[in-house]
Amino acid sequence: MTKTLKDQLSASAAKVETVIESLLPLSQGIEAPLLEAIRYSSLGGGKRLRSFMVLQSARLFQVEELYALRVAAAVEFLHSYSLIHDDLPAMDNSDTRRGKPSCHIKFGEATAILAGDALQALAFETLASEETHPESGIRCRLVNELASASGGAGMVAGQMMDLVGETNSLSFDQITRLQNLKTGEMFAFSARAGAILSGACSNEEDNLRKYAERFGLAFQIADDLLDLEGDPSEVGKPTGQDENANKATFVSVLGADQARNKAEILIEEAVIMLDNWDEEAQALRDLARYILERTN
Amino acid sequence: MTKTLKDQLSASAAKVETVIESLLPLSQGIEAPLLEAIRYSSLGGGKRLRSFMVLQSARLFQVEELYALRVAAAVEFLHSYSLIHDDLPAMDNSDTRRGKPSCHIKFGEATAILAGDALQALAFETLASEETHPESGIRCRLVNELASASGGAGMVAGQMMDLVGETNSLSFDQITRLQNLKTGEMFAFSARAGAILSGACSNEEDNLRKYAERFGLAFQIADDLLDLEGDPSEVGKPTGQDENANKATFVSVLGADQARNKAEILIEEAVIMLDNWDEEAQALRDLARYILERTN
Repeated sequence: MTKTLKDQLSASAAKVETVIESLLPLSQGIEAPLLEAIRYSSLGGGKRLRSFMVLQSARLFQVEELYALRVAAAVEFLHSYSLIHDDLPAMDNSDTRRGKPSCHIKFGEATAILAGDALQALAFETLASEETHPESGIRCRLVNELASASGGAGMVAGQMMDLVGETNSLSFDQITRLQNLKTGEMFAFSARAGAILSGACSNEEDNLRKYAERFGLAFQIADDLLDLEGDPSEVGKPTGQDENANKATFVSVLGADQARNKAEILIEEAVIMLDNWDEEAQALRDLARYILERTN
Repeated sequence: MTKTLKDQLSASAAKVETVIESLLPLSQGIEAPLLEAIRYSSLGGGKRLRSFMVLQSARLFQVEELYALRVAAAVEFLHSYSLIHDDLPAMDNSDTRRGKPSCHIKFGEATAILAGDALQALAFETLASEETHPESGIRCRLVNELASASGGAGMVAGQMMDLVGETNSLSFDQITRLQNLKTGEMFAFSARAGAILSGACSNEEDNLRKYAERFGLAFQIADDLLDLEGDPSEVGKPTGQDENANKATFVSVLGADQARNKAEILIEEAVIMLDNWDEEAQALRDLARYILERTN
């Protein structure tokens, strides 16, 4: 990771964290274990890549950072809910997340389910609130696009395919579709957020979608490679799980070397999608190339 | 139940069912078990009291039924998600719902969790879509209010209190607060939907909220009484569960007779909140009084 990107990522994560903190319902007499579980899962964790994409996308269209930060917070709420539910015993059954006990280990399963449910509602509540953008038409579009990216024809569909895939072998194309749904759609929403917030032309929005889809697939390949080759203490979760579960991944289908090549091609394709922009898209280019470092 | 109310309820349920069917993502290549679980849980069931409230509320403000039907469908999606997650083993652990196997029994726990998640997203996607109302400001308000009614400071908070209450004894006031959150908020959203759709004055909206809160508490007392005294085959789920679980309910705190009296008072108070309206609120009055029949 370049020094500049690292600094930019931390600065962005810190800002988003502050907005998340301000949006969490602190004083409304919310039940203690629920609020604790929500805070535990949505604060203080992760590189916040999706948030970073939202903020950088907003920069491309000169959108006020204040609006972008709220959209970024909504994306993080949505992402946190999906991680909490993903980790549940009936789903991926993961005991750790980012090097800490996962939500249901710490707070119990029922509280974890409810914390995820509340975080999903909070994501949409945040987007629909007047503070997120003065134009209600734009806020509605944000709600619509996030719901579509994360719902039964988006992220949730990808999680369903993933569960079905555990007991079936999947082809390369099926894994691509699965990952486009499971992680790509949320990256695509994040990368398009600036275009949506500014009402930009659909061509520019479309290029950002293509950037994010390729980014998402490369990101997943990097994840698969880390699971195969990474050090659990650095990765922040146990490794070797895909292989143990005999799970169909890019790496299991292509082999490690070809998967790494594929990721490199995807990243170069992603970067090309930013050709309309000059210096202002440099952080998004750096972010894409950083993915490759994860695979090496 | 009066003949008229019964007919009105069935007519309303049938219309809403058609709209729900049209909104379910049928052809988008959604994963089969997920779509099946969503359809299983959101179609063909229940009296659809919340939908009925939405449609009747819209009538009070001469709102186009087309808009009200979409709001009603969104409420049903939200309600279905909450029932699916409520029934999970980590939550209420209910094997049956409306006389049928509950979602996780039929499709497995993971699919049930995902179906609930997808239904929540679909509720907000439906509200934010242009077809729901021409004014985006009104659509944003619908999203905001539903998110707030159903989220971590609303319905989900009530479910959390309910789980905590299983291992603690609760006072009458605590049960009231719990039920206001758990079921009251969603009834209140439904009863206010017409006011929100029409941009009516806050005083009218407030009266409908008060109507719905009282309705909700009486509804819960009726539910508790049915659990104590009802016939499982008529109720559609096993009875005696609260007593077996030693759960704090209105009936366990007040006793059956006093709880029944309380429900009667609540219903009379609810009906008074409709005094601003004439014949056009008759169905909402009938609906409230019908709750009492459930307790006898």
